Amino acid sequence: MIIKGKPIADKITEDLKNELKSLKKDRNPKLSIIRVGNNPDDISYEKNAIKRCENIGIECEVITLLDDISKKEYIDILDRLNNDNLVDGILCLRPLPKNINEDEIKYFISDKKDVDCFNPINMAKIIEGDRSGFSPCTPMSVIETLKYYDVDLNGADVCVVGRSNIVGKPCSMLLLNENATVTICHSKTKDLESITSKADILIVAVGKAKMIKSNFVKENSVVIDVGINFEDGILCGDVDTDDVLDKVSMITPVPFGVGSVTTSILAKQVIKAYKNNI
Amino acid sequence: MIIKGKPIADKITEDLKNELKSLKKDRNPKLSIIRVGNNPDDISYEKNAIKRCENIGIECEVITLLDDISKKEYIDILDRLNNDNLVDGILCLRPLPKNINEDEIKYFISDKKDVDCFNPINMAKIIEGDRSGFSPCTPMSVIETLKYYDVDLNGADVCVVGRSNIVGKPCSMLLLNENATVTICHSKTKDLESITSKADILIVAVGKAKMIKSNFVKENSVVIDVGINFEDGILCGDVDTDDVLDKVSMITPVPFGVGSVTTSILAKQVIKAYKNNI
Repeated sequence: MIIKGKPIADKITEDLKNELKSLKKDRNPKLSIIRVGNNPDDISYEKNAIKRCENIGIECEVITLLDDISKKEYIDILDRLNNDNLVDGILCLRPLPKNINEDEIKYFISDKKDVDCFNPINMAKIIEGDRSGFSPCTPMSVIETLKYYDVDLNGADVCVVGRSNIVGKPCSMLLLNENATVTICHSKTKDLESITSKADILIVAVGKAKMIKSNFVKENSVVIDVGINFEDGILCGDVDTDDVLDKVSMITPVPFGVGSVTTSILAKQVIKAYKNNI
Repeated sequence: MIIKGKPIADKITEDLKNELKSLKKDRNPKLSIIRVGNNPDDISYEKNAIKRCENIGIECEVITLLDDISKKEYIDILDRLNNDNLVDGILCLRPLPKNINEDEIKYFISDKKDVDCFNPINMAKIIEGDRSGFSPCTPMSVIETLKYYDVDLNGADVCVVGRSNIVGKPCSMLLLNENATVTICHSKTKDLESITSKADILIVAVGKAKMIKSNFVKENSVVIDVGINFEDGILCGDVDTDDVLDKVSMITPVPFGVGSVTTSILAKQVIKAYKNNI
């Protein structure tokens, strides 16, 4: 069964609309997005994020900056947004240009408004299992997808392929917080196939088009494909969906899989920040 | 082969003495230890830490506080030490008494002096693979033990049993940074034996006396026992050493295993802080 992201995003959107209605409020939630330059990926994500947020009732503003902005100017903008009581969430579209060191900038976004887990304080909360912070939106989309389709994570053998700071590592920690037994594989893993083919749930976030074939998956397992690749100009994931489809019980497609959930998770975290802020 | 901690601690101690000699300096490194109350475990660790540090040439001071100290008073002491240029490292003996919430206090220790990884900024650095911070001493002792005995971590299948914030989780992330393929097991893991018995390297940090018997280990594997338990008044680890000894290639004992390495790791991190501070 191919399990799509849209129903999850719709459900989260509906829940958030209802939650927002039930809150006593004298102002709307607000998300500030900071974009440097005109990267088409950024613009596309920004457009989708704004559409989702405005549909729910979240005000959005985009602060667009030139490519050659200095670190100080960027931090000044963060400071202003941190101190603006009407701003609930801040999204720094990344990667930032090379002249701005992300590893320095990340400490300057208020952890209370950090709706995509840029600040290390929120990363630490994930590893510590402290749910008061904000998770990065993509790993959270993976968790929400599994929950929506009633996949039991408690004690499940989950294999995560990929150990990026954005997806693989935080996703592993979130799965651990859900009581899964987690194996983290990566480029240095010796016999990847023998490990992935034993997993009840396989999560792939590597960035290699269709690398996971049917011999890599367990019979009746659940496969979550986080990859975004282009092969011959066509968007595809890290999993060869056609090849594994008959073997697995559920698989997310690319496109229309977990990627479709991300902006609703973003909106959910803006509402969380808003509730803490009002 | 039973592999003991003492040679590792001796080697680290010797290296640190030499390093300290080679540094141009007009003052010695200094560690400040904050102890609340008179917990015998704290006092024992403090005594060993001071002995190790002073042997290397690190000055130590102990700030002892009454059990009923307030959060504010504790933070005031941290502030003073954070701002004292002559203090390089701060060790907060934990757990703190219940009237002081560790989850609030931890943000107040300077991450630059946080030699046992109390501040979330250092925890985040571990997950992000950023080596500029400080790791908790026990997981680092595990890594140093494996390295000292030439156990190849690159691509190795490592199983960590236990997911505490102090040992299991940071240890897993440190192993991942060393390119191991890491599986994290815990109380909710369904078939523990089938997982642990496939690991090239098994690290156990659970706190259950002698729970790991020979059926839980792989032939010729390496076993690191981080447990500290008392059974019938006798100190023992999480591994039934006698039962697994003939099956494995190396195993750390309890006592005299990784626990003996911890204070040398602490000293190493004080020297690291000192080098950043002078």
